[in-house]
Amino acid sequence: MSSYIVPPNIDLKNLSSEVKGINQIGEEVTANVTLEKPLTVFLNSAEIVTSMTIGDYPELLALGFLFNQRIIKEKTEVKSVDFDQELNVVVVRTVDETPYEINSKKKIRTSGCALGTVFGNLMDEIDEIKLSPREIKVSILYDLARKINTTPSLYLETGAIHGTVLCDYSGPLVYMEDVGRHNAVDKISGWMLNNDVVGEDKILYTTGRLTSEMVIKAAIMGIPILLSRSGFTAWGVEIAKSVGLTMVGRLRGERFLCLTGSKNLIFDEK
Amino acid sequence: MSSYIVPPNIDLKNLSSEVKGINQIGEEVTANVTLEKPLTVFLNSAEIVTSMTIGDYPELLALGFLFNQRIIKEKTEVKSVDFDQELNVVVVRTVDETPYEINSKKKIRTSGCALGTVFGNLMDEIDEIKLSPREIKVSILYDLARKINTTPSLYLETGAIHGTVLCDYSGPLVYMEDVGRHNAVDKISGWMLNNDVVGEDKILYTTGRLTSEMVIKAAIMGIPILLSRSGFTAWGVEIAKSVGLTMVGRLRGERFLCLTGSKNLIFDEK
Repeated sequence: MSSYIVPPNIDLKNLSSEVKGINQIGEEVTANVTLEKPLTVFLNSAEIVTSMTIGDYPELLALGFLFNQRIIKEKTEVKSVDFDQELNVVVVRTVDETPYEINSKKKIRTSGCALGTVFGNLMDEIDEIKLSPREIKVSILYDLARKINTTPSLYLETGAIHGTVLCDYSGPLVYMEDVGRHNAVDKISGWMLNNDVVGEDKILYTTGRLTSEMVIKAAIMGIPILLSRSGFTAWGVEIAKSVGLTMVGRLRGERFLCLTGSKNLIFDEK
Repeated sequence: MSSYIVPPNIDLKNLSSEVKGINQIGEEVTANVTLEKPLTVFLNSAEIVTSMTIGDYPELLALGFLFNQRIIKEKTEVKSVDFDQELNVVVVRTVDETPYEINSKKKIRTSGCALGTVFGNLMDEIDEIKLSPREIKVSILYDLARKINTTPSLYLETGAIHGTVLCDYSGPLVYMEDVGRHNAVDKISGWMLNNDVVGEDKILYTTGRLTSEMVIKAAIMGIPILLSRSGFTAWGVEIAKSVGLTMVGRLRGERFLCLTGSKNLIFDEK
């Protein structure tokens, strides 16, 4: 566990609440359930998006969201990030005005579990991304998955939550969780931007499915290897191929499926 | 299985594609992965939302989405529903113009896995909903879950997909799947609207988490009992209490947790 720079935030008092109920034999039980609250992101004076989140790291979530949407491309563009706890609002102020403030309606079109992001312009940018391939030993895949799965987390405490973990070859580094899996990965992205951490020598692990959106975010974050305990979607596979992302899914125990970049896997396990 | 009116759509040719990859021992394998494509919903001449979907039942998805957002409240308001396969667009035309066409930006604010829906106005409407309580035997919960889990589905074939199942006390009736769990429930809602089916004597099962959004949709569809194999969020529990929804989560095998409406459960199993 010692490899974590940011371990899961298991502050149950602020991120979950106790609810009384009954179990399958009618016994009274108290369950910890995940909190979710709306967080609205403003870019200067423009309202950009409202997202349901567990509520930790609102500034990183806002920064990472704007970065993963390519609305902000460099840390130097950002003047300030302010969170108003009472209003549940984050205001990101930039040095210069951005085109997104004027035309936010056209830029942000999101919906449902599998979208939640911008298409159109973003897809054009994706076409420009070519990740440098990195090799990885299969023993490291198993090691990362085992370390992540045995880390105390909100998931283990409450369920109903997604996790995303930024790793390097030595182990997991930053473990973010959220009711929306896109928020978890956006918080990682915000942390990377804030701490000037590059993606090229990293590995990203997600508990969620490897959809187009998750692949796009990994590519924008410059991370060449994406792991998941869940499965793939066809468009996710297609984008991963085009950007050169190595993608390993259904990683459970010592089983997995690698649908893109399999030449980068080194089979050191017998 | 005979209870299904609409069984899962396991048309693998149109809803998934075959992708070559390797497994954990480096063997070449062919995996079926779920398709996802953008579907844009127009209300008359106004573009309302673009959603990633596997692509079956586009008309029901559009209808159900508009109904679950309370943009359409009655079937009689709808003049026509047309799907353009080439453009991936559904146009829902109404008898009268709606306020949403003029001001769609204000109405539709969505993001990420846990939101994907409209708040604001919708929350006011939710306050008006009081579901009539229905009792249910615990043996029926187990029976429904077992029937659903053993039904051949895209989930069993490809993974990376969510399912929602409309049931009555005799068994599952309509089983919809989608890359977005909100789409799966919206397709159920569209089917109900289209077939004049009411929710008051039904049970809704979802593979996804019992978030605020899922609870709101069940309430709008008038369904008093919501089941899930996944967990709860705090706001979901709060809304379920206020509308009188009986909510059973973590339903796996013969175990579950009931956090709202537990007085409606009849323990007939020993």
